[in-house]
Amino acid sequence: MITSMQNALIKRIRRLQQKKHRLREGAFFVEGLRVVLMALEEGAPVETIVWCDALLRSDIGRNALTLNIPSVEVSETVFRAITDRDTPSGFGAIIAFESAELTSLPILPDSVFVALENIADPGNLGTIIRTVDATGADGVILVGDTTDPTHATAIKASMGALFAVPIALAPSLNTVTTWARAGGLQVVATSAKASLTVWDAPLQTPLVWLLGSERHGLSSEGMDSAEIRVSIPMHGVSSSLNLAVATGLLLYETQRRTHVPN
Amino acid sequence: MITSMQNALIKRIRRLQQKKHRLREGAFFVEGLRVVLMALEEGAPVETIVWCDALLRSDIGRNALTLNIPSVEVSETVFRAITDRDTPSGFGAIIAFESAELTSLPILPDSVFVALENIADPGNLGTIIRTVDATGADGVILVGDTTDPTHATAIKASMGALFAVPIALAPSLNTVTTWARAGGLQVVATSAKASLTVWDAPLQTPLVWLLGSERHGLSSEGMDSAEIRVSIPMHGVSSSLNLAVATGLLLYETQRRTHVPN
Repeated sequence: MITSMQNALIKRIRRLQQKKHRLREGAFFVEGLRVVLMALEEGAPVETIVWCDALLRSDIGRNALTLNIPSVEVSETVFRAITDRDTPSGFGAIIAFESAELTSLPILPDSVFVALENIADPGNLGTIIRTVDATGADGVILVGDTTDPTHATAIKASMGALFAVPIALAPSLNTVTTWARAGGLQVVATSAKASLTVWDAPLQTPLVWLLGSERHGLSSEGMDSAEIRVSIPMHGVSSSLNLAVATGLLLYETQRRTHVPN
Repeated sequence: MITSMQNALIKRIRRLQQKKHRLREGAFFVEGLRVVLMALEEGAPVETIVWCDALLRSDIGRNALTLNIPSVEVSETVFRAITDRDTPSGFGAIIAFESAELTSLPILPDSVFVALENIADPGNLGTIIRTVDATGADGVILVGDTTDPTHATAIKASMGALFAVPIALAPSLNTVTTWARAGGLQVVATSAKASLTVWDAPLQTPLVWLLGSERHGLSSEGMDSAEIRVSIPMHGVSSSLNLAVATGLLLYETQRRTHVPN
């Protein structure tokens, strides 16, 4: 049992709280029995399970230790130091994470992707990954300077979908549009100013939705690179939607177009 | 200028950080120039503006002080003590808040309401209020033991829509269904098990959507009290949507039904 904060594994876990170390090492640490079990179920590359017997609230975690995954027991003091939860679950894991290569994403005739330019809020990103999974869409492309899908808040909001949805990084919108053209994807941007609503738009799969940051929306470069621009009808004072809600509408609209009434 | 933490107004603001005091006093304190300006624009009952000259970053706040609203200047130390922001804006306000009476909500032929049973996450609640406003829906009904719309996170997520959308409290679902029947509202619940999808459902306004908590969904009482139950089509591993995303889909589906193609 690890009881020292100076242990190399514990020092590594604490280092992984920082984005730059997660990127450099291609791994993150996540706490929570449910999320680790989802990762295992999805076949995610779980490197090491970290657990604390005194904090476990059921035998479910202990049973998971019989799987063929390296596991390390730590003291309660150590476990409390590596979690940000007030009531720790006593179960966590280091999981390897590599983003997908944009050009390796398979494009099928009914593929739908979401490209997010400069998205800042990890909760929104996690919720979007969850919605991409729920709608059977094909992947998320993070463009430019975005928040990190392995941020604890993003992992939590994704409800395990992070382990199921391909996530690619693209340095610029130009990379995305070049890839989209080569793959025959329709590139659709949302703009409050567009006269064509999302319900009237001539959408065609395969398709990629372009969305901008919470604060600034899509850049003019993004607007210009789209084949069509559509608006989401809007009333009221706030005159905009939360980014994850807007993305949900777009993904469900794509899905609705192919829905066969029951 | 107030420089003492023992000042009665400052003690009141700190008290208002607790839900029970907000409820008892029918008021909340919110920090942020943008949100206070939105409240003023919407005609919300702003009681007192609290500001700190040393922290203001532009003259916009100083100009707002010329409006006919009581305002109090406080020292930087005091302002930093009443905010949870790392970089305070130097501008905040005490705003009165009263929930609407359920029976006082006007029901028009095209009215759409959202009733949320036991919703727990203030960020979700604020995002839903923002979406209700954006879709031109008519109000939010909080049923049972829910989070508080004047929680700082809910206010922030609502992006000012809190001041524009009527919010009623209902002690139980029974109260809601009695009100809905009397007003001729269609009561629609969402259920993963429903064979009828939201796209195929015979929706009719006036209508109230029933949604349950993030963790437990709608209670069986809620399911039984609905006139129709509809499902949101779902793929993937997470097998559920974020509550605010789900509510957004339902509100936009109601709106889409009356959309005239352009």
